[in-house]
Amino acid sequence: MHVLIIGAAGMIGAKLTQRLIKDGTVAGKPIDALTLVDVVAPTAPKGAEFKIRTEAADLSTPGVAERVVADKPDLIFHLAAIVSGEAEADFDKGYRVNLDGTRYLFDAIRKIGGGYKPRIVFTSSIAVFGAPFPDAIHDEFFETPLTSYGTQKAIGELILADYTRRGFFDGIGIRLPTICVRPGKPNKAASGFFSNIIREPLAGHEAVLPVSEDVRHWHASPRSAIGFLIHAAGIDGEKVGPRRTLTMPGVAATVGEQIAALRKVAGDNVVARIKRQLDPVIVKIVAGWPRNFKPERSVALGFKAEKDFEEIIRIHIEDELGGTFVK
Amino acid sequence: MHVLIIGAAGMIGAKLTQRLIKDGTVAGKPIDALTLVDVVAPTAPKGAEFKIRTEAADLSTPGVAERVVADKPDLIFHLAAIVSGEAEADFDKGYRVNLDGTRYLFDAIRKIGGGYKPRIVFTSSIAVFGAPFPDAIHDEFFETPLTSYGTQKAIGELILADYTRRGFFDGIGIRLPTICVRPGKPNKAASGFFSNIIREPLAGHEAVLPVSEDVRHWHASPRSAIGFLIHAAGIDGEKVGPRRTLTMPGVAATVGEQIAALRKVAGDNVVARIKRQLDPVIVKIVAGWPRNFKPERSVALGFKAEKDFEEIIRIHIEDELGGTFVK
Repeated sequence: MHVLIIGAAGMIGAKLTQRLIKDGTVAGKPIDALTLVDVVAPTAPKGAEFKIRTEAADLSTPGVAERVVADKPDLIFHLAAIVSGEAEADFDKGYRVNLDGTRYLFDAIRKIGGGYKPRIVFTSSIAVFGAPFPDAIHDEFFETPLTSYGTQKAIGELILADYTRRGFFDGIGIRLPTICVRPGKPNKAASGFFSNIIREPLAGHEAVLPVSEDVRHWHASPRSAIGFLIHAAGIDGEKVGPRRTLTMPGVAATVGEQIAALRKVAGDNVVARIKRQLDPVIVKIVAGWPRNFKPERSVALGFKAEKDFEEIIRIHIEDELGGTFVK
Repeated sequence: MHVLIIGAAGMIGAKLTQRLIKDGTVAGKPIDALTLVDVVAPTAPKGAEFKIRTEAADLSTPGVAERVVADKPDLIFHLAAIVSGEAEADFDKGYRVNLDGTRYLFDAIRKIGGGYKPRIVFTSSIAVFGAPFPDAIHDEFFETPLTSYGTQKAIGELILADYTRRGFFDGIGIRLPTICVRPGKPNKAASGFFSNIIREPLAGHEAVLPVSEDVRHWHASPRSAIGFLIHAAGIDGEKVGPRRTLTMPGVAATVGEQIAALRKVAGDNVVARIKRQLDPVIVKIVAGWPRNFKPERSVALGFKAEKDFEEIIRIHIEDELGGTFVK
């Protein structure tokens, strides 16, 4: 099994790489080779029992995708994307990377032909949905994104399905929940606070909560996200049928429930590090975001997320903090 | 008002041109100039009280769209498309014309800038939906096309909405029902029989019905289609909101109901010209098509179709046959 990860230098890409090295197999087959591609060449991790090659490649440049898939990987994770905020700020770049780059990749695979038909796992996003929503977004709810990023992801889903239907490859799209608790430094993404208010207090730092406690959102841990990717790599495409992109399971939690879970896991002192400071801009942005889903298809197909937000916090402490935190 | 029709040489484009000439106004304003564009230059009709310019232009060639919109039309009807069968048979051509061509047009408008913000009316299709369906497809049902044409139209809808949201233009998409009774010769489109079994018997010719009488489908007359375009040209964008494409109203009729209506309007002799000859290929294709809709939004916004199939037949006799038929 030759595996290619595009967008391997990001948080998800790096964790997926680690998981593949640890497992040594994917989709029920041993891994022979792993190629890691990103705009800046990813660092090749140590300890793998298979060959790892890293490559700097910008798929939004015409011709680059052909080179990247020339050695016909059996399994391709396409994680590369300009994130929501940047795709909104830089219109051309968002369409170039998220739409053209994806299409160049899909076309490069198509043009190889000769029976080459890799599994492609494409990460979409709940940003394909735009308010107003039903209480829980079901599997047949329409996609009316309110950002250019969401638009580009929705287009990626459509092309993935059509190219799969035409037999050019075997694509599975997965709509990731907001990943929480996202490790690393606080960032300026509007969604950053969902992770900040857990990660920073557990590390002994203050965090700002810019919205009210009744804001509800859809979360899954980084560990679950990697689990979704691995499961999507091995899933039977026949069982998925022509509707190739699935909303992943997750935990619907209000900010109040997040804080209650933090209190239960880590105590009052930790919770006291959350400072409330309403930010009208973030309040407004978040009001347009999905709050809850009913992802029956992905659950039936065996995708699994956490059962509650407490579990999400415990996973963060286990995976990122070595099992401990600042009391 | 300067109006531009792209795809003006087709059946809908030609009828829209006639209607604009007859009305002399659109969206409540007098028409000063009309530009007719198609891959082959359309014939300029006589009798208009405003200037008509015709132009041969293939929008799927980079750079052409810039030329076509350079004189900043106030209202653009974008009807140009490779039809379903051809987009399925010629993959590259379908994506080049239906996706790239549309994007080139939208980008050419965007790049003019300086406050230029025309109304664009974009014709989408019920082919954006793919089986299985609910009994009647409601306005929030998701788009999972089962053809490349449907995929390309769904992508057009997404880009139209995003570009409108960003303020580059003011787009309205309309999902046309199957146009029935389509004038002209019988064609080989899989949907052709819906019109053939009405038009040909009324003209004294035999027609083949390749499916069973319980096949249900969604129809509107050419006259209604032009009405939708004209109404979309003048509709208040604020009332439409961010979900820019609307499923048009229509008549859900089974083939049996079509034939019963024909009998009522034209009698047994005419109906006897329909020959039943099942075609398994067409049966299979048609099984994946939408049958019925509940287009509440477009109805609330004032779009109007026929009340039943009988009215569709009477309109055909009136508009295409000078009020008479072969008994």
